[in-house]
Amino acid sequence: MNKYKKVNAAILIIGNEILSGRTQDKNIAFISNWLNSKCGISVKEVRIIPDEEKIIVKNIQILSKKFNYVFTTGGIGPTHDDITAKSISKAFNVKYEFHKEAYQILEKYYGREKFNDGRKKMAKMPRGAKLIYNPSSAAPGFITKNVLSLPGVPSILNSMIENCKIYLIKGLKVYSQTLNLYTVESNISKQLGFIQKKYKKFVEIGSYPFFRLGKIGVAIVTRSNSLSKLSSVRKDLKKLVKLKKLKELKI
Amino acid sequence: MNKYKKVNAAILIIGNEILSGRTQDKNIAFISNWLNSKCGISVKEVRIIPDEEKIIVKNIQILSKKFNYVFTTGGIGPTHDDITAKSISKAFNVKYEFHKEAYQILEKYYGREKFNDGRKKMAKMPRGAKLIYNPSSAAPGFITKNVLSLPGVPSILNSMIENCKIYLIKGLKVYSQTLNLYTVESNISKQLGFIQKKYKKFVEIGSYPFFRLGKIGVAIVTRSNSLSKLSSVRKDLKKLVKLKKLKELKI
Repeated sequence: MNKYKKVNAAILIIGNEILSGRTQDKNIAFISNWLNSKCGISVKEVRIIPDEEKIIVKNIQILSKKFNYVFTTGGIGPTHDDITAKSISKAFNVKYEFHKEAYQILEKYYGREKFNDGRKKMAKMPRGAKLIYNPSSAAPGFITKNVLSLPGVPSILNSMIENCKIYLIKGLKVYSQTLNLYTVESNISKQLGFIQKKYKKFVEIGSYPFFRLGKIGVAIVTRSNSLSKLSSVRKDLKKLVKLKKLKELKI
Repeated sequence: MNKYKKVNAAILIIGNEILSGRTQDKNIAFISNWLNSKCGISVKEVRIIPDEEKIIVKNIQILSKKFNYVFTTGGIGPTHDDITAKSISKAFNVKYEFHKEAYQILEKYYGREKFNDGRKKMAKMPRGAKLIYNPSSAAPGFITKNVLSLPGVPSILNSMIENCKIYLIKGLKVYSQTLNLYTVESNISKQLGFIQKKYKKFVEIGSYPFFRLGKIGVAIVTRSNSLSKLSSVRKDLKKLVKLKKLKELKI
């Protein structure tokens, strides 16, 4: 574990139901927050794509080269539209076959009588995949090279996420602070721009308007790998608050 | 307007706050639902990327070639991290300059006194852009070639979406039906697979597990441009319901 390394990841959401707007995605924010806070890994790109083999294959190939890790969600159930495992096998040109341990887990969970073809399908994975255990509904996720595949149902995904940890190299922790001001963005945009320039490579400053308790405000979010740089930025922001005579919202 | 044309779109979410998980995106489902139901346009890909010029430029170039329309959200406010308009100008190699009408709208809205540099920035757009009017907070969105740029704040975006319509060619409407069954996916996966094969190019069948009133069920969602194909599939699904003696959940 190199504590100075920056580690990044992409999330690939596989599912027509998210693309069509039928289902509101909840996994992106959950995975990203978890990676950030527990592993020091920053999500740098998210893609949402349909359940189409060619498209999944291409995106796996592109994203797995571009980022340290890729998390996929969706498409690992028993039905015809669940083609994530097969597509990942194609993407890495490895065999799509029964995973012995996954097969045993599922057979034990359902009992030999009820272990039908649909359920057996959930034990088929890319050759060489390692399992991500599923404490809530048995069917395991899996990691193939640097691609971690999880189910789409948020409650099940959430129960499995800690079991991804053993496969991940930790990155440098990203610290974040928020300053909530009762003002409008355009009132502070010039000075904020100067401060961002000053800390260019060390601190990322984001500014997000909000409406709260009937008042308009701006949340200034600062993010950095360095706590000391973060506290320097905070001092500069406090000067700006004083200069503009702004009111801070403590929450 | 060709009523038999399939029209597609991509959504490009620009914003570190969504990538980091700090903010839960609400725009993807909203835009996709609206495009589907009001315009017959299907969203085929979504990407979420950081506020970085190079990355925005590249994604605009790729997605605008690949899809009929691209909707961007975020990055059109007054602060330093709002670089969508500038990046789109670079992507299409056109000048980034004040849009006369946008400037007038904003000057009128804020009054000459309060029309500061940050606010003026919101009138800078790619040369040739046309405006998407904003009934809630004045600052307009804009369309550059086939790329429509909207703000990231959901309430403002929602108020503007109808003003995108004049720029869009309507596609063939996609009809959708849902059958909710009290069963598990693996109990019907084999037959569902056969039905999907039968209607391969005409109907898209998705299967989504749900938990409701303490019971486990599966929502089978069928989507098609053809109402008659949709009703044929429904007949086949009803046969399956009878064959397996399943209970339907009417909602």
